[in-house]
Amino acid sequence: MSSSIKTVGFIGTGLMGLPMAKNILSKRFKLNVWNRTPDKTSELQKKGAKVFKDIKDLVQNSKVIVSMLANDDVCKAILIKKIQPYLKKGQIVIDMSSTTQNTALEIGKALKKKKASFLDAPVSGGTIGAEKGTLAIMVGGEKKIFNNVMLLFKSMGTAIYVGKTGCGQVAKLANQTIVGISIGAVSEALILAEAAGADPKAVREIMLHGFAGGPILKNHGLRILTKNFKPGGKASTQLKDMNNIIATAKKYKLNLPIAKKVQELYAKTVKSGRANLDHSALYLFIKALSRQ
Amino acid sequence: MSSSIKTVGFIGTGLMGLPMAKNILSKRFKLNVWNRTPDKTSELQKKGAKVFKDIKDLVQNSKVIVSMLANDDVCKAILIKKIQPYLKKGQIVIDMSSTTQNTALEIGKALKKKKASFLDAPVSGGTIGAEKGTLAIMVGGEKKIFNNVMLLFKSMGTAIYVGKTGCGQVAKLANQTIVGISIGAVSEALILAEAAGADPKAVREIMLHGFAGGPILKNHGLRILTKNFKPGGKASTQLKDMNNIIATAKKYKLNLPIAKKVQELYAKTVKSGRANLDHSALYLFIKALSRQ
Repeated sequence: MSSSIKTVGFIGTGLMGLPMAKNILSKRFKLNVWNRTPDKTSELQKKGAKVFKDIKDLVQNSKVIVSMLANDDVCKAILIKKIQPYLKKGQIVIDMSSTTQNTALEIGKALKKKKASFLDAPVSGGTIGAEKGTLAIMVGGEKKIFNNVMLLFKSMGTAIYVGKTGCGQVAKLANQTIVGISIGAVSEALILAEAAGADPKAVREIMLHGFAGGPILKNHGLRILTKNFKPGGKASTQLKDMNNIIATAKKYKLNLPIAKKVQELYAKTVKSGRANLDHSALYLFIKALSRQ
Repeated sequence: MSSSIKTVGFIGTGLMGLPMAKNILSKRFKLNVWNRTPDKTSELQKKGAKVFKDIKDLVQNSKVIVSMLANDDVCKAILIKKIQPYLKKGQIVIDMSSTTQNTALEIGKALKKKKASFLDAPVSGGTIGAEKGTLAIMVGGEKKIFNNVMLLFKSMGTAIYVGKTGCGQVAKLANQTIVGISIGAVSEALILAEAAGADPKAVREIMLHGFAGGPILKNHGLRILTKNFKPGGKASTQLKDMNNIIATAKKYKLNLPIAKKVQELYAKTVKSGRANLDHSALYLFIKALSRQ
């Protein structure tokens, strides 16, 4: 990392952003913070972060700006309307929120007008990964800029460069394709095991040792077996991801039949009143299908 | 393991059976071997195994008999017709082949007539797992018998008791549900990433660090990216598994929409001339869908 980058501005200290910002701070970066709801920044302030009331001041005092925001509209409102006007040549904006590829391209274009650099760098790993500093970070933009901020990424997890602007978001969509479908796979496997008389807890346990193993069977499989649908990732968010996957597939004239089927199932899961449950509540919807 | 069990009879020294038998031998069990094609036993003979020409002699000289055979018909022909007549009270037969739940129940019933015990104990992990002794072994039958042969299982991998006779096969079906669907998930994710302009190799690499990670993305994802469809598990075998999953679902009046969709896709993959390619060749079929 270039020695000039010691100060990082962080925008969006929510469920994911707060632990990410803490990890940046603990790796001896100076941290500037701004959040729409200022009380969420107090914990960081106690740990030595400088809290700005005006986002303009944060922009003018941070070589690198990291954002972790709720959705595409918020990203565009903050990064293009509130931040872009104050950016100067050579500043780097890293959006770690999950957005569409198009939103990333739009932000990148707007920032280029100020000769500032942009990386789209969404993450996988949830709040646990954010807390432990073990996020998977998928980065699109200029390779040179990626190399310059590698140490910053390292404070939050493992980052890999996947292509030009927007490709970080594409990688996140690919990731969510696997996550959404895998939750369906684990759901149907456990429904089958239980109905056919096997102990589903033992079945999950032994499957973790073979080809079927992985984080979804481990985490979401456990949620299903313990009936813990208190949300980590919400079903409504997974539906948003699946819709985005199918829209992107359409854009590139792709036919993705399994993703399409899982999109339909998430739409029905949400419609059945399970929008605010964890995305593993897909299990509840599929299980109910067999009773009809 | 009961101290009386020092000698294991092994039947079926094929691609999976041979390395499994080697691991049993290396853990200081005495090994008796029989195979339909006798030349496949010569390597074990050199390592100290006793090769029997007549299966009757193997049965009469082995307290525990392990079988690893090709399919349901072969299992029934060997275990019920060739072995059962010579069994005596207290002998234990462990079928580690993958069969239907019904076949396991049928074999268990036939062996009970001789007061012999039966465990159905199919595996996941492929030839690599068989060689390394890291198979996931899913065991159905009497818990007491399972406990008695735990050390034997340990020589081949990790074994977990999942329920009464037939439940090992149910667990294997659950496992194959996840495997089949996950190969589809990885296929569609990589197709999307590549079409949308990201580097699919980098995307796979970073996804391995997040919730989408696991053995299917690792192994089959690599096969897809390196176009290596030389079979480990064949597409035709995965179709057999998917058919078996849907038939079992029907037996228990279950609606498993994602497994059903993946069954259809494997049927088309096989029909398109890819039966003898690796099951990851599902990718080739799905990719071709978008060009139509």
